[in-house]
Amino acid sequence: MPLFEHHVFVCHNVRPEGAPRPSCTTDGKSELHTQLQQLTKAAGLGNTVRINKSLCLDQCEHGPNVVVYPEAAWYGGVTPGDVEEIVESHIVGGRPVERLRLKEECLNTSFCEHRAPKSKA
Amino acid sequence: MPLFEHHVFVCHNVRPEGAPRPSCTTDGKSELHTQLQQLTKAAGLGNTVRINKSLCLDQCEHGPNVVVYPEAAWYGGVTPGDVEEIVESHIVGGRPVERLRLKEECLNTSFCEHRAPKSKA
Repeated sequence: MPLFEHHVFVCHNVRPEGAPRPSCTTDGKSELHTQLQQLTKAAGLGNTVRINKSLCLDQCEHGPNVVVYPEAAWYGGVTPGDVEEIVESHIVGGRPVERLRLKEECLNTSFCEHRAPKSKA
Repeated sequence: MPLFEHHVFVCHNVRPEGAPRPSCTTDGKSELHTQLQQLTKAAGLGNTVRINKSLCLDQCEHGPNVVVYPEAAWYGGVTPGDVEEIVESHIVGGRPVERLRLKEECLNTSFCEHRAPKSKA
């Protein structure tokens, strides 16, 4: 098995209190990461899917953020209550969860309406 | 620009001294990350390529590790001297650097000959 079928990156970035951009986790832990690992293992995909911790994915205003490769499916505002659907629909079923995807006009741009001006970021 | 054209994850994992598996960095810093950022920016790709820090990519015996998506090109044993070639050939030119790629028989498997038995890992 030369490649992971899915490589899931969960943002674990923690900024100091008062930082101009928000953090995806507040304590450096991530229930999302733990749940994603548990549910993919329970689905028998522990060897073909890697649930990875990542540092800042730079979509901070939309966090907690998760990105799934090789599809480059970006999810924002993910809560523990969303994990089962991500695993069942996307990781097992191959259908990304559309309701959680970051909007095209928000992804990878400093002009996103939710983002503070770059000088303050 | 809805997606990054390349999303590069550089392992920043640091294990305690004496840990059974090696670390990709020893001090939590990464010259690889800094150089990749500098050279992609210099190539005018600062907005379309993200050089990301990641935590453990689980190919520890082959580190320092870097993986580039969406191609899922895994590089091992990467040194600062390799960065220019990665940027010029792969990120700019679209041709992954074959000499740095992890061997298929080593990637994503606990049976890799370089890896300690799982019970010790």
